[in-house]
This record gives sequence, structure tokens and C-alpha cells, in this order.
Amino acid sequence: MTIVYLALACGVIAVLYGLFTSGQVLRAPAGDARMADIAAAIQEGAKAYLGRQYTTIAIVGAAVAIILFLTLGTLSTVAFLIGAILSGVAGYVGMNISVRANVRTAEAARASLQGGLTLAFRSGAITGMLVAGLGLLSIAGLFWYLAGPAGYAPNARPIIDALTALAFGASLISIFARLGGGIFTKAADVGADLVGKVEAGIPEDDPRNPAVIADNVGDNVGDCAGMAADLFETYVVTIGLTMVSIALLVKAPSAELLNLMAVPLLVGGVCIITSIIGTYFVRLGAKGSIMGALYKGFWVTVGLSVLAIYGVLQWVFGDLNAVIGGAGFLEGATDTLTTEAVLGTEATAGAQFTALDLFWCMMIGLAVTGLLVWITEYYTGTNYRPVKSIARASATGHGTNVIQGLAISLESTALPTLVIVVAVIATYQLAGIIGVAFAATALLALAGMVVALDAYGPVTDNAGGIAEMAGLPDEVRHKTDALDAVGNTTKAVTKGYAIGSAALAALVLFGAYTTDLKEFFPDTIVDFSLSNPYVIVGLLLGALLPYLFGAFGMTAVGRAAGHVVTDVREQFAADQGIMAGTSRPNYARTVDIVTRAAIKEMIVPSLLPVVSPIAVYFIITAVAGQGEGFAALGAMLLGVIVSGLFVAISMTSGGGAWDNAKKYIEDGNYGGKGSEAHKAAVTGDTVGDPYKDTAGPAVNPMIKITNIVALLLLAALAGG
Amino acid sequence: MTIVYLALACGVIAVLYGLFTSGQVLRAPAGDARMADIAAAIQEGAKAYLGRQYTTIAIVGAAVAIILFLTLGTLSTVAFLIGAILSGVAGYVGMNISVRANVRTAEAARASLQGGLTLAFRSGAITGMLVAGLGLLSIAGLFWYLAGPAGYAPNARPIIDALTALAFGASLISIFARLGGGIFTKAADVGADLVGKVEAGIPEDDPRNPAVIADNVGDNVGDCAGMAADLFETYVVTIGLTMVSIALLVKAPSAELLNLMAVPLLVGGVCIITSIIGTYFVRLGAKGSIMGALYKGFWVTVGLSVLAIYGVLQWVFGDLNAVIGGAGFLEGATDTLTTEAVLGTEATAGAQFTALDLFWCMMIGLAVTGLLVWITEYYTGTNYRPVKSIARASATGHGTNVIQGLAISLESTALPTLVIVVAVIATYQLAGIIGVAFAATALLALAGMVVALDAYGPVTDNAGGIAEMAGLPDEVRHKTDALDAVGNTTKAVTKGYAIGSAALAALVLFGAYTTDLKEFFPDTIVDFSLSNPYVIVGLLLGALLPYLFGAFGMTAVGRAAGHVVTDVREQFAADQGIMAGTSRPNYARTVDIVTRAAIKEMIVPSLLPVVSPIAVYFIITAVAGQGEGFAALGAMLLGVIVSGLFVAISMTSGGGAWDNAKKYIEDGNYGGKGSEAHKAAVTGDTVGDPYKDTAGPAVNPMIKITNIVALLLLAALAGG
Repeated sequence: MTIVYLALACGVIAVLYGLFTSGQVLRAPAGDARMADIAAAIQEGAKAYLGRQYTTIAIVGAAVAIILFLTLGTLSTVAFLIGAILSGVAGYVGMNISVRANVRTAEAARASLQGGLTLAFRSGAITGMLVAGLGLLSIAGLFWYLAGPAGYAPNARPIIDALTALAFGASLISIFARLGGGIFTKAADVGADLVGKVEAGIPEDDPRNPAVIADNVGDNVGDCAGMAADLFETYVVTIGLTMVSIALLVKAPSAELLNLMAVPLLVGGVCIITSIIGTYFVRLGAKGSIMGALYKGFWVTVGLSVLAIYGVLQWVFGDLNAVIGGAGFLEGATDTLTTEAVLGTEATAGAQFTALDLFWCMMIGLAVTGLLVWITEYYTGTNYRPVKSIARASATGHGTNVIQGLAISLESTALPTLVIVVAVIATYQLAGIIGVAFAATALLALAGMVVALDAYGPVTDNAGGIAEMAGLPDEVRHKTDALDAVGNTTKAVTKGYAIGSAALAALVLFGAYTTDLKEFFPDTIVDFSLSNPYVIVGLLLGALLPYLFGAFGMTAVGRAAGHVVTDVREQFAADQGIMAGTSRPNYARTVDIVTRAAIKEMIVPSLLPVVSPIAVYFIITAVAGQGEGFAALGAMLLGVIVSGLFVAISMTSGGGAWDNAKKYIEDGNYGGKGSEAHKAAVTGDTVGDPYKDTAGPAVNPMIKITNIVALLLLAALAGG
Repeated sequence: MTIVYLALACGVIAVLYGLFTSGQVLRAPAGDARMADIAAAIQEGAKAYLGRQYTTIAIVGAAVAIILFLTLGTLSTVAFLIGAILSGVAGYVGMNISVRANVRTAEAARASLQGGLTLAFRSGAITGMLVAGLGLLSIAGLFWYLAGPAGYAPNARPIIDALTALAFGASLISIFARLGGGIFTKAADVGADLVGKVEAGIPEDDPRNPAVIADNVGDNVGDCAGMAADLFETYVVTIGLTMVSIALLVKAPSAELLNLMAVPLLVGGVCIITSIIGTYFVRLGAKGSIMGALYKGFWVTVGLSVLAIYGVLQWVFGDLNAVIGGAGFLEGATDTLTTEAVLGTEATAGAQFTALDLFWCMMIGLAVTGLLVWITEYYTGTNYRPVKSIARASATGHGTNVIQGLAISLESTALPTLVIVVAVIATYQLAGIIGVAFAATALLALAGMVVALDAYGPVTDNAGGIAEMAGLPDEVRHKTDALDAVGNTTKAVTKGYAIGSAALAALVLFGAYTTDLKEFFPDTIVDFSLSNPYVIVGLLLGALLPYLFGAFGMTAVGRAAGHVVTDVREQFAADQGIMAGTSRPNYARTVDIVTRAAIKEMIVPSLLPVVSPIAVYFIITAVAGQGEGFAALGAMLLGVIVSGLFVAISMTSGGGAWDNAKKYIEDGNYGGKGSEAHKAAVTGDTVGDPYKDTAGPAVNPMIKITNIVALLLLAALAGG
């Protein structure tokens, strides 16, 4: 239990860091009255939206909680509610700090680029550490209570069920938050651009545009709150499911199992500390490269994490080379720890591993993080071929810009897939499915740092907007734009990272599904072979989900943006003073319109991954019997990741590349702002918006929900 | 053998129909000297391109033939060459008739819409019947020779190998033809539009545009020759692999097996006859609906095919209700026909079926064809929500047009997937994998009619171009445009149909792979369970292929179109007389530039599906042993279809919808030609071009090649 206590302590440190740094950020000067006025409007809009969003989600959540209570009992319901509430808190806190940091960043950027960077990055780091810290506290706290005071064995069913329900709560809220926020932010953004830049010919963030506040609200509720809820979900699912897979697959005495299950918690804990240390290294060098400054912090964290993870294993296991559970480990071990065969897989049966194997698996996890960051930077950064090729294609028009952007979207899936494939093979060779799970855990252990890198983006985006609206000097806007361009890359990084972890987790989740199946339904023959047509059917139906979900998301943005266009046109027509700059547009009305549209549009697609697995199971069972129903459902879980990985990466990387191709042109290439190439690049950016910020990132929680609903369905069927 | 003779006779009838109808088409008046001049330029360009394309392919083909000769022997090499050469012939003939029919269609459209429709449709029907006829003759001829004069048992290895090699030849040529032609046609189209419509502000098909002939050549070498080679491939693979799967899976005495294997041939044969009859029913009704006229021919063919298929089964099997191979069937049956268990699949083991079951499976195949046609019309026709929604989104700009188009692309995958899933389940329940194979055969049996519907499109497109260039009255162009709009839908239909058949065939191909594996490597344990991580790895790598392939295709079009733009700009700059209309542009130079670019760009992506399965097998075998190598390779085969189905459908349907949204606006909606909405719609059309005509359709042969290469690899490994 000492391990769990230490992990809890790390979680508390993360929260304290958040409180302490919030104080720093809030003490920074908040600019003049005009800036404060604008910031207040953004705050108000963001709070109003999140308030209504969470009210709606609460209704769905309550309905789900009742179903869970009736089918799976009190414990699962409580765990579900903890996950759901903390996911909401993570999002809310992220938004709350972001809407205060934006105006302060604008003010700080007046003085220096470093000042703006520090302020924006700190506010991102608060969100990052709270996401990781709250995630860790929820899992570790639940585990501590159940394995401690409640007295359950670490692999007892209630612990497995509670961790699964916790993950479900986090996932369900996060898909709503990701999608609702994503629809809000892009509907406002696209709508504001269409009617402002394109129709009225006024610049982005011009205060005469009635949609301008809604656009800035969107950065906070989508890119910040939605992202935080999403990463909270990813953190809880990955670390929680690693523990569940240990409980399900490793046979060992309780005390040893408890220690092994606590390792992912402590790894998460020490990496929060290394992430906090890393944040203090984010400083501009002599060359003034912003990405370089962020990299400094990131690589310090990675380097320290290697040492910290090694230390954790050394401390927990002593001899790293002894087979875990063998003589070198705790006294009183009755048999050797072995991962159990998963439904007859030859290779898994009897696989043994040492602590050193786990160390290497986690190093592979860290390497995957580093490689995904590097690949994403390559595909979305303004210094490399992909973005430059889109910018070049813009010179020949809108059509070629979009064609090249789509080509880059498709291409950008290749390297991440190869990295993930190599990681799966290597970690599996080292320690079976447990090895894959530990790699995913190490990947997610850096979430605090990765979220920090991401969450700074929307803050600078907002700061730029405020600078523009408040009429600050152009050089301020120039600085915030430079920060924002890097933010486009770091935003894409987080999304690739989240979906990459989902791909690693897929095998772990499927392992949990098959093990549960064997436990709950020992007499049902389930054939997961690819030659079973119901497996093909499941794969195809699973593969369909990200496409259908993407279609919903894209259409929702288009439709909601249409409402914005109509509203702004009406405001312009009703009051000529708006364009003249003599009257103030009704910002709140536009915010309200986007709010209602986003909340209405998020419901159906968010329920798709909840309802689909249940429908597939019951329909196939009715047609071909329960065995085939389980086979099709299992295959669906893999189908959704096999297709979702590509849909998500192509959308998020492609969207980032489009956005930065526009920025690259705005930096004076191919004619710069106002040129024909720039107009084409604006089109590409508009297309990329819902790709990268609505449909693409929401695929990650969608995949998890499909998987977790399947696990819960098994438990419900077994109980019923 | 009587059955095979009858099938051969039907193939001969198809060829005779082609010759007879060619005569009819060629006897139609070819217009005035100006028109003949333009048509000659198009003919010349198309022949020059295809000549160089086939020369390049011949070099690759010869290299592959040598490898086949060294690894698999003479028979496979000869079969490969037959498939390759006939695929080339199908493409060449399709192009050849199309470049003659275009000018005659323009001339006929002067007199009446019906005249234009009849001429264009007849020329399409020639291509259609030759594709089906040559396909049938190649399979039936090879089967006749091997099972007859050469004296092999119908399920002897040489027959299986020869049919597989025949399919490989057809597939390999068709991927080059599809991709090379696709790159040519869209590079020319996009390049001509960019520099003509957008930069110079001259209309489409304006004779002052130096790229205009290249654009019209493209319709013939891409949409006609490439499509014909593709469908030839699909026909040969589907019917050939149905026979192979019968040989591999059904245990019965030779005489019975021979009859059962000949049934797909005769079904193909009688459906050629019903297709020929159907072509005579394509006539405009009182309402003048072009789609209605085409539907009349299509539904007559479907109706007659139902009767013909029933008749074939009745004639071959006598009692439709007796278990095939049971007492009701041929004398001397030693045991009951059963489909053998495929690697221990519970459901397949011992599945029995009757001729009536096969009849229903084929009815399901026909129903799938009808449903795919209907769904594609819904998603790409100008009368329905999807196209109208894209047109509406065009009113708010380029960005929203593309967003809505992408949303429709993603959405359009849902219904076809559900149709295919239901068809797989239903046919599998009826007669196991053999049932799925027979459904695919019935689907493809209508290829003659479907290709006829498709191939008429490029002819009318060309006719419109010639009318424009030759300065025919506007009303002629109006008629050809109306024909062309329907052509966009029928083109999308063929592509959806081809990829749909690939999805059905996937299970059959995987069945062949596993059965081969068991036969060649009885001692290697291969675990195809989804819980084997190498299966996940294979699925992911397979799923990557269509994305990477799509990226290559899109980039190639963008790059080649860039060459066109540069060339045309140079021509305009060098000679002011071109824009003034006083000097004739150098059309041949542009054609030559596109030719070189297309041939250069087609090589690497076409080899991707040839090399990938071999690489995956050897790398995974080196890392984890042969069993896992086979598992990963097998999973790759399914991964490529699970992702390819969605990539292909989304691209082809989405592209068709974009194209027709433009046409819908040109019909006077949302401001009509020249409006801002129209400009946005032109952008969407440009984006859709490489989607629907380059990357999307080439996914179909790519999937087949991956599968067939895997089968050949097994044979080569076993022989080596």
C-alpha cells in the first residue's frame, strides 16, 4: 500500500502545483479596461456555455447512472459518478484558468515574447497537472479504498468493475465535452470567418463582427475544456485498464498482485513530478524558437522520467532481472507470476517477464511519445515539406490547396501507424499484453506535460483575439500569432498522442473483453478467428462508426455555422452602425445561438458508440446465437480502432497542416495576406477546422466508449 | 462439360454483339470536318497514351512473369499472361470505341436527346459486353482446357493455381491502367480547369485552352479504358475465385464438382444474354428522364436474370430442394457435398446446401446490386438531399462546400456497409462461404450491363467537349450536359459496385488463403484469433494501405496538374494569338506532358500492394516466426478491405456528389453559372476529381492484388 500512498501524494502535489501556479497567473496584470471588458465577455460566454453543456450531460449521466445502478449495483454507479464528475471538473477548471490567462497573456506579450510564452504556458501547465493529478487521485483513491478499508483482494471482481465504471464515467462525459465543445468552437470560428473575412471583408477578430466573442469563447470551451476532459478520460482509461489487465491476466498471491497493480499508479505519480520540473525549463533560447523552448521542457521531462521510472521499478522489485514473482521478489510467493493465455493464444500462454522487461516496455512507451511528437511536428510544422506543399498548392487555387491537404491527411497516418505497430510487437515480445499495457501507461504518464503544451495554444489564440479587439499595437498580435502557430502543432500532437494511446490500449481492452467473456460465460464457444464471417461483420460495423461519427460532426459544424452566418447577417442589416464601428454588436446573442446549436448537435453522435455495441450484440445474437453475438461485438471493438486510428490521425494532422499552411502564407510566402494563395489557404483552414477540432479528436473517446460499453454489457448480461 | 460449352457460347455471343454494335456505331454520321479534326486529335492522344502506358506495363508484366515462371512454373505464367493481355485488350477496346463514339454522339445529339443517348449508350454497351465476354471466355476457356484436354481433376492444384494466376494478371494490369488513366484524366481535367476557367476565365472545353484535348483524352484513357480494365479484373477475380473456393472447400466426386464449378460460368453467360436484351430497353419515356431510361434497361436485365439463373440451376441440378450431392443429384455420388471447416470454424463445418440455397444467395447478390445502384443514385443524384446539401453549402463559400462534401463522403459509406453486412450474414447462413461466393458471382454477372451504364458517361462528356470546341449550337451542349450529369451518377455506381463485390469477395479470398495455408503448411500453427497481437498488427498495416495509396494518388494528380498549369501558362505567354483565337495551341505538347507525368506517377503506388504483403510476411516471420508471419499476412488481407471499403466508397460517392452539386448549380440554382456559389462548387468538383476518378476506384484492384499476391506467395513458399 505504500506505493499507492506515494502515488496519491504525487496526485496531491499536482493539485497543489495547480493552486500555486494559478495564484501566479492571476497576480499577473490583466491589462486596461477595454481588455478587461472583452475578457469578461469571453468568460461570461464560456461559463454560460459550459454550464448548459454540463447540465445537459448531467441529465444523460443521471439516466446512465440509473441504468448502471439497476444492472451493476451501487459500487459501479459510484465509480461511474466519480469518473464523470472529475472529467467535468477537469474540463471546467481548464476553461476557468484559460479565460483568465488569455487577457494576461496579451498584456504580457506587450512586454516580451518570453513573457507571453511563460504566462500562456503556465496556464496550460495548470490544466495539464490538474488533468493528470485528478486522474491519478481518482484511480488511486478508488483502488486504495477498495483494496484497503473495503478489504477486497486486488483482483476481486468489485475492483475490476469499479475501475471499468470509473473509466466509463470519464469517457461518457468526455465525448460530450469534446464533441459539444468542438462543434461550438468550429461553428463559431467557421461562421465568423465566412461572414466576417469572406463576406464583409473585415479581419479576423475584428470587434465589429458579432461572432467574434463566440469564436473566442469556442477556443476555451472546445480546445481547452473539451481537450482536458478528453485527456482526463484517456489517462483514466489507460492507467485504469492497465491495472484491470494485470488483475485479470496475472496469477499471483494478493500481496504481489497489489504491488504490481500499484506500479502504473506510481509511474503516473513520479511522471507528474518530472512534468512539473520540466515546465520550468520552457524558456526561449538565443534563437528565440518557440518550439525549441517547448521542446526543452518536454525533453527534460522525458529524461527525468526515464530515471524516475527506473527508480520506481528498482524500489518496488529490487532485482530487476528476476522473474517477477520468482525468488528475487517478495517473500512468500507461492507460484511464479505468469500472464494467462488469452483464449488459447499460443504466444501469451505462460509468458514470463521481469521488471527489466517492464522497464523496457515503458521506455518504448516514452519513445512512442517522442516519435509521435516529432512526426506530428513534421506534418503540421511550418518548416517541413507537408505544410509547405499545401502552401505551394494554394498558389494554384482553392481546389489544389484542398487536394494537397487531403493528400497530406492521408499520408500522415503512415508513420504513426508504423511506430505503433513496432511498439506493439516489441512490447508484446517483452512481456505479452501486460507489456503493451505498460507501454501505454508510460505514454500516458507524460499527459501532464503534453496537455500543458496543448492548452497553451488556445490561450495564445485568445490573447491574439483580445489584442486585436482591444486595438493593441500590431507587434503584440505578431507575437501572439507566432505563439499560436506553434500552438497549432502542439494541439495536433496531443490528438495524435491520445489516439496513439488508444491504439495501444485496444489490445489491452480486447484482452479484458475476452478474459471477462471466459469468466462470465465459460460455456459459450466464441470464435474470434478471422475466418468467422461474424468477425468480419463486426470489423466492418466497427470500422463504420468513425466514418458515421465524422459525418455527424462535420455536418453539425456546417449547420451550426450556418446559423451563425444568418445571425450576423441579420445584425449587420438591422444596425448599420455595427460596420461603421459606432454601435456595439450583440455578442451575447451569437454566443447563445451557437450554444443552443452545439448542445443540440452533440447528443445523437455521442450516443452512437454507446448504443451501437449493444445493438450489434443483440441483433447478431438474435440471428446467429450468443457465441456469434460475442464474436461480432469483440470484432467491432477492433474494427473501430483499426479504422478510427486512421480517421483520427488523418483529420487532426491534416487539419493542423492546413491551418499552418495559411499561417505560412501569412508570413509573407506566395504573396502573403490578401493574395489569391492566401484566399485558397483560408478555404483549406476552414475545411481543416472541423476536421481537426470536432470530428477527429472526438474519435478517441468514441473508441474507448465502444470498448467500455462492451465490457459493461458483459457484466450486465452475466449479472442478469 | 456441356455447361462450360454453353458458357463459352455466351462469351462468343458477347464478342459478336460487340462487333455487330460497333458496326452500327461506326456507320453513324461523324459530323463536319471541324468535329472530325477535333475527334482525330483526341483519338491520336488517347492511342499515344495507351500505347506508352501498355509498353511500360508490359515491362513490369514481363518481369513479374519471369518471377512467376521461376517460382510457380509454366502453367501459372501462361495463365497470368492471358489475364494480363485480355485486361489490356478490354481497356484498349473500350478506349477505341469510345474515341469514335464521342463525335458521333455529338452529331446525333444535334437531332435529338434520344439519338445522343442511344449512340453513347450503345458504345458503352460494346465495352460492357466485351469486358464480360472476354472475362468469361478467359476463365471458361482455361477451365475447359485444364479439366478437359489436359485431364486434370476439377479441384486439382494446377487448376486452382492457374485460375489464381489468371486473376493476378488481370489485377496487376488493371491497377496500372486504373491509376495511370486516373492520374492522366484528372491531372488534365484539374490542370485545364485551373488555368482555363479560374485564371484565364474561359469556359470549360474552350478550344483556346491548350489542355483541352488532354482533358478529353483523359475521359477515354481513364474513365473508359481504366474502368474497363478494372471491371474485367473484378469479373475474373470474382468468378474465378468462386470456382477456386468450390474446389478448395467442397468435397465431392469429380463429375459433381465439375458441374458445380461450372455453374458460376453459366450464370455469367446467361446474364450476358439478359444484359444484351436489357440494352434494347434503354429508351426515353414520356417524361424524358435519362436516368429513367437507363433504369428501364437495368431492371429488364435484373428481371430476366432472375429467371435465367433459376433456369440454370433447374437445368443443372434438377431437384432444387435436394442437398447438392445427395440422392436427387447425379448418379454415382459417393458422399454428400459439404463445405469443409475452414480452420476449425464451428459454423462452416459440415454446412450443407441445396441448389435452392444457391439460388437465394444469387438473388441476394442481385438485390445487393440493385441496392448499391439505388444508394449511389441517392448520394450522387441531383434530386436528393446529399447533392442539394452540398449545393446549398456552396452559397456560403468554398470552405463550407468542401466541409459538406466531406461530410457526405463519410456518411455515404454507411448504407452500402449495412447492405454488405446483411448480405454476408444471410448468404453465409444459407450456404456458408460458398453462399457468399455465389452472391458475389451474381453481383458480377451483371457487369456487362453495369459497365454499359458507366462507359456511356465519358462518351457524352467527350461529346460535350467536341460540341463546345466545334462551336455547335448551345442546345447540343445542353443535351450532352444532361447526359453527362447522369453519367456522373452511373460512374459512381460502377465504382461502388466494384468495391462492394470486393467486400463480399474478401471472405472468399480469406477462405482460400486459410485453406491453402492448411494444405501447404499443415504443421505450422497459425492463430487468426483477434487476441493475437500479430493479427492486430496485420489489420493495422492492411488498413494503412488504402490511405497510403490514396495519398500517392492525390499527390500525383496535384503534381501532374501543376505541370499542365505551367505548360499552359507558357503557351499563353509565348503566343498572344492563342487567347485571341487566331493561333492554334499546341495540344499535343500538353498531352505529351500529362502522358509522361501519369506514367511516371503510376509505378510506385501500383507496386505498393504487390510488395507490401511480401514484406509483411518476411519481416514478421523474421521477428516472431512463420506462424505469426502467416497470421499477420492473413490479417493484412482483411485489414485492407476493412479500411479500403470505406476509403473507396467515401471517395467515389463524395466525388460524384461534388460534381453533381456543381451541375445542380449550373442548372440555375443558388445563382447559377458564374455566381459565387458556382465558384465554390467548382472548387468542390476539383477536389472530388482525384477522389472519385484516381484514388478511390484504384482501391478496388489494390485490394485484390494484395490478396492474390498472398495466395501466390503461399504457393511459391510451398514450392521453394
